[in-house]
Amino acid sequence: MGILTGISIEEGLRLITERIQCVDKEMEMAENACGRVLSENLISPENIPPFRRSPLDGYAFRAEDTLNASESEPAVFEIVEEIPAGKAPEHQIGFMQAAKILTGAPVPEGADAIEKFEVVEADERTLKLFHSYESGTNVVPVGEDIAKGDQVLSKGTVISPAYLGILAGLGYVQIPVYKKPLVYLISTGSELVSIDSPLELGKIRNSSIYTLKAFLEANGAQVKMIPIVRDDKEEIANAVRIASEEADLIFTTGGVSVGDYDMLQRSMEYLGAELLFWKMQMKPGGAFLASVYHGIPVLSLSGNPSAAAMALFMLGIPVLRKLAGRSDFMLETCQVKLLEEFGKKSFVRRFVPGRLVLQDGEAYISVTPSQGNGILHPLHGCNMIAELPKGSLAMKAGSRVKAYLLL
Amino acid sequence: MGILTGISIEEGLRLITERIQCVDKEMEMAENACGRVLSENLISPENIPPFRRSPLDGYAFRAEDTLNASESEPAVFEIVEEIPAGKAPEHQIGFMQAAKILTGAPVPEGADAIEKFEVVEADERTLKLFHSYESGTNVVPVGEDIAKGDQVLSKGTVISPAYLGILAGLGYVQIPVYKKPLVYLISTGSELVSIDSPLELGKIRNSSIYTLKAFLEANGAQVKMIPIVRDDKEEIANAVRIASEEADLIFTTGGVSVGDYDMLQRSMEYLGAELLFWKMQMKPGGAFLASVYHGIPVLSLSGNPSAAAMALFMLGIPVLRKLAGRSDFMLETCQVKLLEEFGKKSFVRRFVPGRLVLQDGEAYISVTPSQGNGILHPLHGCNMIAELPKGSLAMKAGSRVKAYLLL
Repeated sequence: MGILTGISIEEGLRLITERIQCVDKEMEMAENACGRVLSENLISPENIPPFRRSPLDGYAFRAEDTLNASESEPAVFEIVEEIPAGKAPEHQIGFMQAAKILTGAPVPEGADAIEKFEVVEADERTLKLFHSYESGTNVVPVGEDIAKGDQVLSKGTVISPAYLGILAGLGYVQIPVYKKPLVYLISTGSELVSIDSPLELGKIRNSSIYTLKAFLEANGAQVKMIPIVRDDKEEIANAVRIASEEADLIFTTGGVSVGDYDMLQRSMEYLGAELLFWKMQMKPGGAFLASVYHGIPVLSLSGNPSAAAMALFMLGIPVLRKLAGRSDFMLETCQVKLLEEFGKKSFVRRFVPGRLVLQDGEAYISVTPSQGNGILHPLHGCNMIAELPKGSLAMKAGSRVKAYLLL
Repeated sequence: MGILTGISIEEGLRLITERIQCVDKEMEMAENACGRVLSENLISPENIPPFRRSPLDGYAFRAEDTLNASESEPAVFEIVEEIPAGKAPEHQIGFMQAAKILTGAPVPEGADAIEKFEVVEADERTLKLFHSYESGTNVVPVGEDIAKGDQVLSKGTVISPAYLGILAGLGYVQIPVYKKPLVYLISTGSELVSIDSPLELGKIRNSSIYTLKAFLEANGAQVKMIPIVRDDKEEIANAVRIASEEADLIFTTGGVSVGDYDMLQRSMEYLGAELLFWKMQMKPGGAFLASVYHGIPVLSLSGNPSAAAMALFMLGIPVLRKLAGRSDFMLETCQVKLLEEFGKKSFVRRFVPGRLVLQDGEAYISVTPSQGNGILHPLHGCNMIAELPKGSLAMKAGSRVKAYLLL
């Protein structure tokens, strides 16, 4: 039976995501909820602010009483009260009355305008205003921030620092979120040794898994590593089986290209997993196997660090975000310009990691000079991916390209 | 004695940072070191790769033996060995000899070129090549990634996912880093109640501290909160004293503007702290008090959420980063264009939070419509700050502005 092969990333992503259920829900304490994904639509139970608030230190009065005020003939008010923040006003403000009011304090009834200390003339008992004011001046109305009944945030939203403040302001001590997806990373390859081992000839430290782990964690995963499984069908199958007991998503590295010792496909067949597709039309990262085992997606990346990272970015991260319950799981795209010339032809769709550079109002992507195999430097500071279309020739600096944001 | 007042942000930042010692060092496990700050210059003890490596599955041979190869008269090689990844080669490659070689395997002595499986003709014993190759083709040289003795990373560098992979590849199981600065956040204000309290008239939930905490954590701090100290000189002084017993940096919110009940300055005087300066020429966030108590910077932010956040971004974050040992502690700046018109005049330097928007190769900042007091929405997705110069009038969409990156 032939496995589907040579498909586009978009098709690959569709085939995997249509098989995904997002993870379960849990409650998280507000102070730890930043970066988590909301699991419910949140409707405001209150107006914020719940009262008319003063945004500054000054005096509250009736705007209509200033109608004829001028530099030469100021309106003169009687100060009837002083309202610090946190205190309820005791008086209603009447004709030619004012209250001293401090930042954050509730505006007393009757008053509909506020002026700050610095531009008035006042003593303990009397306030002078030198021009007319419109009703509402410097008064923060009830519900200005959030009105009662408003949908504040929708399910699938990542909780930013600002959103966390809003939720805390609405009294959410605990916030309904999706659990962090548990991701297993399995490194396969008889050439790998642990990072604390000396390097015998031919051996390589199992280091790029640390990079993959860090990128996954930055996208909301909890990551466990099964380090270094030999190029052996049964060992690999066994590692996947163990991971599948608790993982929401499994990544493997190594064993997905056409060489004789590349055996992820055979391992997954041996395990009885469902093979979705093998290889995508992209470079690097095209060597990729997608399977499903016991309902869990198993995404098998290349053993080459650059190829593994690119397939992780373009396919693994959207899959992870979907699984995590995010409504915006696709990478955001935009148009930028190449900061440097790109000399190579692209026989298939080519994806180049780079950094966003902002110069004089223009947005560039800088693709660091070395894009060689096995080099992780190009990924440093990598926050976007340029796509060079299939068939494109060398591209000059300044050429427009489509880019995918990793931010 | 008059306190220094009305200075620029740059001067304020200088006055604080010149008083800062960065935090102590510690060792961190590689798997947890992403995002931490390196506390030593790291020199590579090894070449990476330590041997000539094959980047693909193919055949290794001597390039000079292909000199006369052509489609009609291919060069025919004897295959003497097969080298999987992780295995040391057993033979030196001689005249018209080749070795089958797999991705990641060491290139055998004698061989200086590699061609991939897909474009050759081969059986178990014989390889045919149809054109000539240059020496070095598809051979990853020793030390291509990192040469022995190279300074790999310098002290003060934030460890990115890519850098973590490099350090792991060099065998760093533990990495020398600076400790995470311990930051205390103290909310002052008699109007504040805890976030799980119902709102009586005049009261406000102590919510914006959650936003500040999240921004500080995103910049490498470990944060503890002392929630809700009343507007009382002794209570505030006592909270600062308690925090100073273990904090590396203290932030307070509230009590720094000109109102009668604003008392951070009096509290810090009462405590015997050294007052550095009060108020900066910026809007919002100009209401700001900087002190030093027992060698610990105490940065007192406004009780207004927008003002507090802006002073945190423009001053607090650089101070935190310096304290954390980062060599790049200043916010990066760039030129972008306003996506929308900005209607207000700016009597002092105005700082507006916004989001980077990339459109057709142009870099814009979108400053969300509502910039009102007390509203945290404008901070959502905020990843840059536009600076509008003192004296600037309303600015049209497309105007160039200086921006500070929070990324």
